[in-house]
Amino acid sequence: MLVKTLEWVDNKLRLIDQTQLPERLVYLDLDDYLELAAAIKRLSVRGAPAIGVSAAYGVVLGVQGLAQADRATFDRTADTVIKTLAATRPTAVNLFWALKRMEQIVKTHEKLTPGELLPKLLAEARAIEQDDRETCGRIGTHGAVLVKSGAAILTHCNAGGLATTQYGTALAVIYQAQKEGKQVRVYADETRPLLQGARLTAWELTQAGIPVTVICDNMAAFLMQQKKIDLVIVGADRIAANGDTANKIGTYSVAVAARHHNVPFYVAAPVSTFDLNIPDGSAIPIEERAAEEIAISNGKRMVPAAAAVYNPAFDVTPAGLITAIITDQGLIERPSRETVAQKVKPA
Amino acid sequence: MLVKTLEWVDNKLRLIDQTQLPERLVYLDLDDYLELAAAIKRLSVRGAPAIGVSAAYGVVLGVQGLAQADRATFDRTADTVIKTLAATRPTAVNLFWALKRMEQIVKTHEKLTPGELLPKLLAEARAIEQDDRETCGRIGTHGAVLVKSGAAILTHCNAGGLATTQYGTALAVIYQAQKEGKQVRVYADETRPLLQGARLTAWELTQAGIPVTVICDNMAAFLMQQKKIDLVIVGADRIAANGDTANKIGTYSVAVAARHHNVPFYVAAPVSTFDLNIPDGSAIPIEERAAEEIAISNGKRMVPAAAAVYNPAFDVTPAGLITAIITDQGLIERPSRETVAQKVKPA
Repeated sequence: MLVKTLEWVDNKLRLIDQTQLPERLVYLDLDDYLELAAAIKRLSVRGAPAIGVSAAYGVVLGVQGLAQADRATFDRTADTVIKTLAATRPTAVNLFWALKRMEQIVKTHEKLTPGELLPKLLAEARAIEQDDRETCGRIGTHGAVLVKSGAAILTHCNAGGLATTQYGTALAVIYQAQKEGKQVRVYADETRPLLQGARLTAWELTQAGIPVTVICDNMAAFLMQQKKIDLVIVGADRIAANGDTANKIGTYSVAVAARHHNVPFYVAAPVSTFDLNIPDGSAIPIEERAAEEIAISNGKRMVPAAAAVYNPAFDVTPAGLITAIITDQGLIERPSRETVAQKVKPA
Repeated sequence: MLVKTLEWVDNKLRLIDQTQLPERLVYLDLDDYLELAAAIKRLSVRGAPAIGVSAAYGVVLGVQGLAQADRATFDRTADTVIKTLAATRPTAVNLFWALKRMEQIVKTHEKLTPGELLPKLLAEARAIEQDDRETCGRIGTHGAVLVKSGAAILTHCNAGGLATTQYGTALAVIYQAQKEGKQVRVYADETRPLLQGARLTAWELTQAGIPVTVICDNMAAFLMQQKKIDLVIVGADRIAANGDTANKIGTYSVAVAARHHNVPFYVAAPVSTFDLNIPDGSAIPIEERAAEEIAISNGKRMVPAAAAVYNPAFDVTPAGLITAIITDQGLIERPSRETVAQKVKPA
């Protein structure tokens, strides 16, 4: 039974505080959109799809006190809330995509009063959540055909239930393979600096009874050299029109190693992760995060203060290194401008 | 001015406790070889050459109380001390090489009394230390010709002064380039799990006034993709007769990425790091260390207890990925059985 990453309960957004895992399973009950914005920024909720769904509910949090307000005040506030949530993280496109869906509801129903509009906004957020759940299920089904029983799968970061509302993207494939009776084993890159692989992927896989071994990121190539990895599956934060894929920093390194060892390298993501406005990966904005995430570990300084630190949060894997993208609409094999265009239609 | 990693003072071995850097510069004064064995095991002193020199002094520590003993007792003790020190770590060959030199002194002077033999053992340990210092200097000189002014150099783990008696192997090249007036910048892989790059390399380079930027290991390929790395220099723990090189885990991953991006990849090591008894890398024993090094970070558990952890401490980079090995006897370009045999003679 998979834990719910987020849930709308009593007009609040309940989230697992992912910064506390695996030590403690703590839920946050948020009723203020600014608290949610802060939670997204500090990665209490993270993973491109989960950020999108949370932000949609965040719009509801930001305006639900305005049922009696005049429509101009409501619209102004909704605009501020959407802009604030959009500014939390720059790379994952699902955030902007979900906020756009919410904005569309506000714009489409221009004649309604705030009291009439609010249920429609909540319904849209619920629909985004429901879509995500179904989307992940379809990714699992499409991807599981690639997994043979006995396979050892390497994954990086957390593209699991915790990165979505429930099933995950990369891990949805693994959960589905397990459901189909296949034996699978997972190697999880710990994923420096914030250890989403060690903390989150290992946690949710052990909860699901799937054998998982945590390794340091720098060991992945060595395992491939020893022929211990049959395939790689990772998630995505934004995919350009030509298939170039932004994902957690370190993904590119795994892709290069996979190519060197002829190990298939799969990206699992909903079609909503494609940003067709971006022709290739060079135009995807890469978030740079605070040096302290690397320099300080559980309160202790591990890098001398006089040294510089560079902390990009994502990298871009060129489409040419990707065997296939596993989407909710099926596989995109040998991703390119042409093969992407066949599956992913402009919104 | 470079700090001394180790020094023989008042019949004791004074070592920097490298587990405490960069927070504190703490020296250990060891007068018991068992304390030294424990210090090697927990990596208070680490780096192939530094381990070799320390172990040589460790033999002196183990027998210096036996000046009045009979020769049979002395020899038996020396044998135990050497075996104990040899059992501390399996991969770095310098440990065995240095202990063999000490053992040779005991065997060669079979007619001497313990009181006569002791000064010869101390002299041999001092000679091993002096050799290391000169060797590192020559590595620096031979390697610096490969470094252009303005170069950005990536290194992994710590193959610096702290890994030797004073100058280092990979970092000796960088110190020499600086001495020759070249501008150099270093990217230091933090080097999980024990962060020798973040803690030690960054520390000694800032001490030496060389600009250093710490990155997570999983960022190195991304930096190469962005053309931010001109060359890679790493150390070595053992080199097989065909040039296959065992070094800190993660080195192989960097070598694969360097090849993918056409970035020159250099190994810097004294000829004493070659083990001509080992035909290729597959026969080099790889130390596996405790899961806790990965699972627990500054006292806090980062991997759920139900998950497995795999912690190999070294990997092997095939000679084919190495542009050249920088030795104290000059460069071995395109290392192979033939090119290695031209420079490295059997002992």
